[in-house]
Amino acid sequence: MEFTLNQIAVVLEGAVEGDGNRVIKTIGKIEDAGEDAISFLSNLKYENHLYTTKAAGVIVDEDFQPKQEVATTLIRVKNAYSAFTALLEEYDKYTRFAKEGVEEPSFIGAGSTTGTEVYRAAFSYIGKNVTIGNNVKIYPHAAIGDNVTIGDNTVIDSGAKVYSNCIIGNNCYIHANAVIGSDGFGFAPQEDGSYKRIPQLGNVILEDDVNVGANTVVDCATMGSTLIKQGVKLDNLIQVGHNVVIGKNTVIAAQAGVSGSSKIGENVTIAGQVGIAGHLQVADKVVLGAQAGILKSVKQEGAIYMGSPAYNLRDYFRAYSVFKKLPQMEADLKELKENA
Amino acid sequence: MEFTLNQIAVVLEGAVEGDGNRVIKTIGKIEDAGEDAISFLSNLKYENHLYTTKAAGVIVDEDFQPKQEVATTLIRVKNAYSAFTALLEEYDKYTRFAKEGVEEPSFIGAGSTTGTEVYRAAFSYIGKNVTIGNNVKIYPHAAIGDNVTIGDNTVIDSGAKVYSNCIIGNNCYIHANAVIGSDGFGFAPQEDGSYKRIPQLGNVILEDDVNVGANTVVDCATMGSTLIKQGVKLDNLIQVGHNVVIGKNTVIAAQAGVSGSSKIGENVTIAGQVGIAGHLQVADKVVLGAQAGILKSVKQEGAIYMGSPAYNLRDYFRAYSVFKKLPQMEADLKELKENA
Amino acid sequence: MEFTLNQIAVVLEGAVEGDGNRVIKTIGKIEDAGEDAISFLSNLKYENHLYTTKAAGVIVDEDFQPKQEVATTLIRVKNAYSAFTALLEEYDKYTRFAKEGVEEPSFIGAGSTTGTEVYRAAFSYIGKNVTIGNNVKIYPHAAIGDNVTIGDNTVIDSGAKVYSNCIIGNNCYIHANAVIGSDGFGFAPQEDGSYKRIPQLGNVILEDDVNVGANTVVDCATMGSTLIKQGVKLDNLIQVGHNVVIGKNTVIAAQAGVSGSSKIGENVTIAGQVGIAGHLQVADKVVLGAQAGILKSVKQEGAIYMGSPAYNLRDYFRAYSVFKKLPQMEADLKELKENA
Repeated sequence: MEFTLNQIAVVLEGAVEGDGNRVIKTIGKIEDAGEDAISFLSNLKYENHLYTTKAAGVIVDEDFQPKQEVATTLIRVKNAYSAFTALLEEYDKYTRFAKEGVEEPSFIGAGSTTGTEVYRAAFSYIGKNVTIGNNVKIYPHAAIGDNVTIGDNTVIDSGAKVYSNCIIGNNCYIHANAVIGSDGFGFAPQEDGSYKRIPQLGNVILEDDVNVGANTVVDCATMGSTLIKQGVKLDNLIQVGHNVVIGKNTVIAAQAGVSGSSKIGENVTIAGQVGIAGHLQVADKVVLGAQAGILKSVKQEGAIYMGSPAYNLRDYFRAYSVFKKLPQMEADLKELKENA
Repeated sequence: MEFTLNQIAVVLEGAVEGDGNRVIKTIGKIEDAGEDAISFLSNLKYENHLYTTKAAGVIVDEDFQPKQEVATTLIRVKNAYSAFTALLEEYDKYTRFAKEGVEEPSFIGAGSTTGTEVYRAAFSYIGKNVTIGNNVKIYPHAAIGDNVTIGDNTVIDSGAKVYSNCIIGNNCYIHANAVIGSDGFGFAPQEDGSYKRIPQLGNVILEDDVNVGANTVVDCATMGSTLIKQGVKLDNLIQVGHNVVIGKNTVIAAQAGVSGSSKIGENVTIAGQVGIAGHLQVADKVVLGAQAGILKSVKQEGAIYMGSPAYNLRDYFRAYSVFKKLPQMEADLKELKENA
Repeated sequence: MEFTLNQIAVVLEGAVEGDGNRVIKTIGKIEDAGEDAISFLSNLKYENHLYTTKAAGVIVDEDFQPKQEVATTLIRVKNAYSAFTALLEEYDKYTRFAKEGVEEPSFIGAGSTTGTEVYRAAFSYIGKNVTIGNNVKIYPHAAIGDNVTIGDNTVIDSGAKVYSNCIIGNNCYIHANAVIGSDGFGFAPQEDGSYKRIPQLGNVILEDDVNVGANTVVDCATMGSTLIKQGVKLDNLIQVGHNVVIGKNTVIAAQAGVSGSSKIGENVTIAGQVGIAGHLQVADKVVLGAQAGILKSVKQEGAIYMGSPAYNLRDYFRAYSVFKKLPQMEADLKELKENA
C-alpha cells in the first residue's frame, strides 16, 4: 500500500488539515505509529498522544478542537472510529488479496480448474479434479487433495492441508498448517490386544465464512461428513473429531477439543482448552468456560458451564470458593466430633 | 474406484437381485448414500431406509425378506456386515495406496534408495542416505531428514516431517503436519537467569503399525531413542517428550501430553487432554480419564484414574459429587459450630 | 561426523589409552552406545558399564583407575563430564549448521537478500523484500512472508511459517511446522449473531535466543507487535495470542496457552497445559504448575500457583488432600446434624 493522505481523504470523504501529500504505507496506534503510518483519535482520553505522535496523519471527528498545536496532518471525518475501521478493512482486503497469478514451480493435477484472480504460490499443490472458485488465494506449501471443491474468496494459507473429497465454502480462511480432513481416530480392538484401523471414508464440509486457525485439525467423518456450519470461527490448535457437527456462528478458542460425533449448537461460545467428550450434544448459545471438561450433554440453551466435569458456572465458583477453605472445615469438623 | 454391482458381487461371493450393471464410485450410509454409492443393511432397525435409499446397491443378508418393493439393487451375501466391512477395507486400501511413481519436482538426496510401488509426490523432500521400503507413500511437502529408515507400506502424509536419523517401521501412518524427531525441550539454567540449549542428539523409533495423528509431535531423545512400540495409536495434536517410551498397543487421544522420560506401559488408554509429568511410570492396562493430570507414577496395573492431580476415578467422582454440595456443607457446619 | 579417537583426544587435550585409530561417527550413553560411538564415564555408579560397553572410546577422568581389564579405548581428560559436554556442543553445532548453499528448486522473491553461509533448502519459500542474516538455515517447506527480517545464526526448520512483516532475532530456533504471525483471533459480534473479522495488521517480534517448538503458534498483534523477548524458550504445541508480551528468559512447556494481550514477566516458569486468560499480568519469577488455569493476574513476584482457577500451590494441595476425604466428611457432618 502506498497512498497520499489526500487520496485517503477522498476515499473517507474527509477534509485534510495540513500536508496532504505525505505518503502512507501502513496503519498504527497513535502512541506508536511510525512516520509512514496513519492513525486515528476518537476517545479523547488519548488526546495527549496527538501532540507527540510520529504518524503522518491522524483521522479525527469533524468537530474535534485541538488544545495545542498539532504537527501531524489531520483528516476530519463524520465519525473517526468508523472511518478508521473502514480503512482497516480496505487495507486488510488489499494486503490479503493482493497476490494473484501463478508462481512456479507449482502443481495442479489433471481435471482441476480455477476461477479468476486466483493466486497459486510456488510449491502449492492441487490434486486431480479440484474445483476452485474466483479470487481464491493458495499460499506456498498448501496442499489440496483430489476432488476438493473450494468456493470464492477463500484463503488457504501456507502449509494448510485439505484432504481429498472435502468441500470448502466461500469466504473461508484456513490458516497456516491447519489440517482439514485427516483420518478420524477409529480403531477396533482385536482379541490379541492390538487395534485395527476402521477405514475413514467420509469428508469435511466447511460452509461459508468459516475461520480455521493455525495448526487446527478437523478430522473427516467415518462415512458422511464432519460439518462446520456457516460463520463458525475456530482459533488455533483446536481438535475437531470425526462426524462432529458445529452449528452456525459458534466460536471456539484455542486448544479446545471436540471428540467424535458430538453435535455443538449455534452461537455457542467455547473457551480455551475446553474438552468435549464424544457423542454429546451442546445446546444453542451455551457458554463453556476455560478448561471445562464436558462429559454429559448440555441440553439447556444458554447454560454457562465450568469445571471438570463441568456444571453451572456460578455453582462451580461458589463450591470452589468453599474448596479453598477445606483445611479449616476439616479442623472444625474434627473438633465438633471430639466434643460431640 | 469405478465398479459395477456385478463386479462387486463376484468379489463378495454374493447374488445380485436387480440391475447389476449400475456403476459404483463410493460407499455410504444407507440413509444418506448417493446414486453412485453402495451401502448395506444388517440391523433391521434401519430397514425402512432400504425402501427410500438412493444408493445404487445395498448389501443384505442372504435370507433377508423385504416387506415392501425395493427400488435399489440388492446383493445377497452370507453376512452383510462382514461383507461391507471387507468392502470398506478394500476401498480404503485402494484409495490410500493407489498413488504410485514420482511427481516432479521432487527431491531425493545422494545415497537414498526407495523400494517398489513407492509414491513420491511433487514437493516431497528426502534427504541423504535414506532407506525407504516397498509400497511407501510420501505425500506433498513431506520431509524426510538424512539417514532415516522407513519400512514397507508406510504412509507419510502431506506436510509431515521426520527429522534426521529416525527409524520408522512397517505399516505406519503419519498424518498431515505431524513432526517426528524435533528437539527435546532441554535447557540448562545459567547463573545470569538465561538458559543454554542441551544438545538433543538422539532419535525417534516408531515400531510397526504405529499411527501418528495430524499435528502431533514426538521429540527425539537427548541421547538414545524416544521409543513408540508396536501398534501404538496416537491421535492428533499430542505431545510426546524426549526419551519417552510408549508400550505396545497403547492408545492416546487428542491433545494429551507425555513429558520427557516417562515410560507408559502396554495397552494403556489415555483420554483427551490428559497431561503426564516427566520421569514417571504408568503400568500396563491403566486408563486415564479425560483431562487427568498425572503427577506421580501409576504403578497398579489396570488402575483407572481421574482428576488433577489424578487418583482412582471412582473415588474422584464420589468426592466431586460432594464438592458440588460444599456451600451447603459450609452452612451446616457453621450452624453446628454456633450451636455447639 | 567422522573422526578418529586420536583426533578427538587432541581437541579435548586428553591422553589416549588403547587403539586411537578407531573411527567415531556418533555419541552415545555408555550402556547403549554402538561400535562407532564415543561415550563417557563420570559417575562411578555406572562403572560396571565400562567393562561391557560396545563404544569405541570412553572419556574418563585422568585419575580414574579401572577395577577390571578394559576392552574399549580410554581418553583421559581433566574432567570427563565437562569434556563430554563440550564434545556434545561441538557435535551439535556441526550437525545443525553443516548445511549450506541453495538446493533447487527454491524460491526467493524480488528485493530479498541473504548473508553468508546461508542454507536454503529445496522447496523453501522466501517472499519479497526479506532480509536474512549470516549462517541462517532455512529447511525444506519453510515459508518466509514479505518484508520479514531474520538475524544471524537462526534456524527455520522444515515446514515452519513466518508471516509477512515479522522480525526474528539472532540465534533463534523455530522448529518444524511452527507458525509465527498468524491472525489473532479477533471477531466483532454482529446484530444477526454472526461475527466479523477484525483485521489483524500487526506482526510478531522474536528477540535473540528465542526457541519456538514444533507446531507452536504465535499470533500477530491486531496493531503493533506480539513480543517474545530475549531468551524465551517455548516448547511444542503452545498457543500465544495476539498482542501478548513474554518477558526475558521465560520458559513455557508444551501445550500451554497464553490468551490475547496478556503480559508475562521475566524468568517465569509455565508448566505443560497451563491456560492463561486474556488481558492479565503475570509477575516475574512466577511458577505456574501443570494444567493451572489463570483467570486473574498473578501480581506477586515468585508466586507458585496450581489449580483451575489457580491459586497458591501449597494451599491448593492442602485443600485437594481434604477434597479426597469429602465423602467421609459428608457422612460425619450428617451424623453430627442428626445428633445435634
